[in-house]
Amino acid sequence: MTVACAIEQFLPGHPICYLGDIARTPYGTKSSRTITSYSIENTQFLINQGAEIVVIACNSASSVASDQLRKKFNIPIIEVISPAVQQALKETRSGRIGIIGTRATIRSKVYEKQILCKEPDFKVFSKACPLLVPLVEEGWLNKRETKMILRRYLHDLKNKQIDTLVLGCTHYPLLKHLIQPRIGKKIKLIDSSVSTAQYLKSYLESKKLLPVEKDNATKIQKSTFFVTDLTQSVQQVAEKIFQRPLKLERI
Amino acid sequence: MTVACAIEQFLPGHPICYLGDIARTPYGTKSSRTITSYSIENTQFLINQGAEIVVIACNSASSVASDQLRKKFNIPIIEVISPAVQQALKETRSGRIGIIGTRATIRSKVYEKQILCKEPDFKVFSKACPLLVPLVEEGWLNKRETKMILRRYLHDLKNKQIDTLVLGCTHYPLLKHLIQPRIGKKIKLIDSSVSTAQYLKSYLESKKLLPVEKDNATKIQKSTFFVTDLTQSVQQVAEKIFQRPLKLERI
Repeated sequence: MTVACAIEQFLPGHPICYLGDIARTPYGTKSSRTITSYSIENTQFLINQGAEIVVIACNSASSVASDQLRKKFNIPIIEVISPAVQQALKETRSGRIGIIGTRATIRSKVYEKQILCKEPDFKVFSKACPLLVPLVEEGWLNKRETKMILRRYLHDLKNKQIDTLVLGCTHYPLLKHLIQPRIGKKIKLIDSSVSTAQYLKSYLESKKLLPVEKDNATKIQKSTFFVTDLTQSVQQVAEKIFQRPLKLERI
Repeated sequence: MTVACAIEQFLPGHPICYLGDIARTPYGTKSSRTITSYSIENTQFLINQGAEIVVIACNSASSVASDQLRKKFNIPIIEVISPAVQQALKETRSGRIGIIGTRATIRSKVYEKQILCKEPDFKVFSKACPLLVPLVEEGWLNKRETKMILRRYLHDLKNKQIDTLVLGCTHYPLLKHLIQPRIGKKIKLIDSSVSTAQYLKSYLESKKLLPVEKDNATKIQKSTFFVTDLTQSVQQVAEKIFQRPLKLERI
């Protein structure tokens, strides 16, 4: 949802077809095989809905399933890792980069691989933070326990003299206000949601797929938001992120 | 797994066919509709494997799906709520009973309904504790943060003069050692896993389905443990619960 919201802000004229696989989340604790199989189903659903470009708006799925999705589907598949890596490489001065993410993302080592492939002398330090997703989903965004758990997770990274930290999970931007003071005010945080939306915008520009300003008013189609499960807390979190009422449709 | 383990202890001669729907857990945050649909699939799988009695070894699924499962399948369906309620009614002296569980279980009000149906003058106090499942699954069984979160969840219940507390989620027995001192040493904890295993044993006795002692050696069949997803942490948790090496088979 944080990625969809960032895309909406960067590309206001573009209709989004969103699918949140709420029934089967969290993905970050699952095996690569299961994440890949769910990602294939979800992509097929979006294509059936008429999607022409698919954004894998989840770091865990991007980490382990993007190669398979590109092999299987003949449309552009955008993931959230490469844009965040690009942004991190642009921001870092010292070449010492931290990554936080789910167990699946960290286990895949995808951030290390992509960074070291471009800058073999850089140092990458990773830390899986599996409890942050449930804490965010519970809406515990300012609780003392969340701060303590964050301090515990960030402890090792604090001694590594990083100057850039990638928030390698689309839930983590909601904890930015707690992460920044705990990791250090001078450390640049990379929000993969924003990087991905920026990347998508320049991709569409390069392919001349951006809607012409004038046409927006007539061409604008309503975005649709599908979920595989719908509870009160999902509705609340969605409206908190988008800052407006949102019609979620259960499939 | 805590229920399967208790059943193994109470009924050592009986082969178990276990299915852990790890790929789609946790259930406790999902809607009743989704939990019911997954429970139907899981029950069908167990019946296809030859199960003659199905135990819904999850409070969330028991709370919202047991009526549907009984309608749909023509074999005995045992759930974990009624045995825990029976045990709680047996233990309480004051008639003031606390329930902790997932959001789905607490929302269903199934414990209140069953208790008040038998004892209309009793008082039932419920509290959803959604973060306990991820904490247990992370293996944070003795961390300071787990203790703080438990204290927060149990805070309201402490002022209700309960004398009995039902651990209304099959994950919670793993936190018994933290719950007991925080809720009070004199308060009786009801472990729905143990109550269910005891109930199953007396059910089998009443139907004369218990294997004869002598036959055990020859009749004993190997139990099978299926999971819908398999990761290292699932394997570790399983062996921690069963206290022995366990062959988990991914379906």
